[in-house]
Amino acid sequence: MDFPTWMSAIQQRAESALDAVLPAPTFAPARLHDAMRYATLGGGKRVRPLLCHAAGAVFKADEKVLDTAGIAVELIHAYSLVHDDLPCMDDDVLRRGKPTCHVEFDEATALLVGDALQTLAFQTLSNHLPGISPARQLDMLHLLATASGSRGMAGGQAIDLAAVGQTLTVGELEFMHIHKTGALIRAAVLLGAHCGEATPEQLERLGHYANRAGLLFQVVDDILDAEASTATLGKTAGKDAAQNKPTYVNILGAAEAKRMAAELRQEAHDALAGFGDAAERLHQLTDFIVERSF
Amino acid sequence: MDFPTWMSAIQQRAESALDAVLPAPTFAPARLHDAMRYATLGGGKRVRPLLCHAAGAVFKADEKVLDTAGIAVELIHAYSLVHDDLPCMDDDVLRRGKPTCHVEFDEATALLVGDALQTLAFQTLSNHLPGISPARQLDMLHLLATASGSRGMAGGQAIDLAAVGQTLTVGELEFMHIHKTGALIRAAVLLGAHCGEATPEQLERLGHYANRAGLLFQVVDDILDAEASTATLGKTAGKDAAQNKPTYVNILGAAEAKRMAAELRQEAHDALAGFGDAAERLHQLTDFIVERSF
Repeated sequence: MDFPTWMSAIQQRAESALDAVLPAPTFAPARLHDAMRYATLGGGKRVRPLLCHAAGAVFKADEKVLDTAGIAVELIHAYSLVHDDLPCMDDDVLRRGKPTCHVEFDEATALLVGDALQTLAFQTLSNHLPGISPARQLDMLHLLATASGSRGMAGGQAIDLAAVGQTLTVGELEFMHIHKTGALIRAAVLLGAHCGEATPEQLERLGHYANRAGLLFQVVDDILDAEASTATLGKTAGKDAAQNKPTYVNILGAAEAKRMAAELRQEAHDALAGFGDAAERLHQLTDFIVERSF
Repeated sequence: MDFPTWMSAIQQRAESALDAVLPAPTFAPARLHDAMRYATLGGGKRVRPLLCHAAGAVFKADEKVLDTAGIAVELIHAYSLVHDDLPCMDDDVLRRGKPTCHVEFDEATALLVGDALQTLAFQTLSNHLPGISPARQLDMLHLLATASGSRGMAGGQAIDLAAVGQTLTVGELEFMHIHKTGALIRAAVLLGAHCGEATPEQLERLGHYANRAGLLFQVVDDILDAEASTATLGKTAGKDAAQNKPTYVNILGAAEAKRMAAELRQEAHDALAGFGDAAERLHQLTDFIVERSF
């Protein structure tokens, strides 16, 4: 299967799996369930489920189990976007080409949507996973929680808030992104590996890969934000600069940011060297992260 | 040990256990960790850890394990209070006799505090629990998630929002409270029982007890809110009436609400009948819920 076909298949699997775990709007409270579906379905690159499946493929993990692990991470990501867009945070009106959740519904509903999507992530990952021992599944839950909390993604948001209007060094910017986006990307890769029979040493190497890929993702995001149009991005372009947020482009300049992206891309590929052809999807995804135009 | 001594001992255990799982403010991001501690420590009745311990005592469950399960529920409760107090929700300025989190810090920080406290609940409950099989622990995580999400507590908040200014029947009000506060109280009781060797039949009877106790707790809350002063409550008194929220007191009148409380109290005691003296703490807590003045 070529990469675009594979990617599209995984994206469709993720969409179906999300649709299956999100309560139907016929269940009370209908408006909340409607808004949860609005914020989660019908959009998104599904980078985290893709990474989860690609890492699982290294160990020939069961695809159904990978679906569950992948959407658990995606639900955390979806919740963070809804809360991140709120007026007290980034105050954004456009996401994935549609009005943000609090614009389409209201602020209180969007707050609860984020809260309930986070809960749903842990509810989903605590469902029975065929072929996974309960002890390993507990490790997976712990991994996802650690990556999402105050010393992971939520902590990254707090560091991001504090950085608005500040002049950061590249090191400080990296510290922020390792938390804000890196932790969850790493969780997606490691959860995929946990769905197979990865050894601790293999997990460590994949963790290193994920660190490079996560940072790469962010550097490319900054480049795209600076260069692309709102229509192409499906979210407000140039908003980092407008909000006076530190980015790799405004700290390093566009040329240096692109050089850094090229270096991270190479390091990510190098980290996968020991896995041979089994890591094909991870290699392809790494290139896709760089070459994507959204 | 008499009841007040036992209660105070459990409250202190909960405080210590919360203190131990909350990251120190010396860890970055310091302001977020500071705010998480502010919102969680040094206050609160700790009703959910008390219920967890009381239910665990029926089965002579390990107290350290009960501490972990109890504070996992308390962390969910604490997150819900922080988000509930936000301007887009109840817009409250006083909680446990102190300025609410968004007043003391800021709105964005309070949003992240709630998010990270929720994550910490699942992180805590996915830690190794001595003497509990991983399969049982997964059940406990699933139980807590189900009770907290869109078809439990968060759903109850959404129903509550939609009910402002509406005329509800007693049945509709009960439906709201079963979600908003009942689900988590039930989770506290059942998690405590899961820490011991409760049979499915015993879990069912305790579930029934918890349903009555949860509703009792809410009816008493409505009576206190209508009658007590802000100083006694440590939160803004009379705010339900001021916000035009439906309560048992304004639907049924104070006298009928008190009669209902007496009935629920009796039903709660009755549900415990089969457990004999082992349920002593649950009986005492039930009475305490009614007789408390806060």
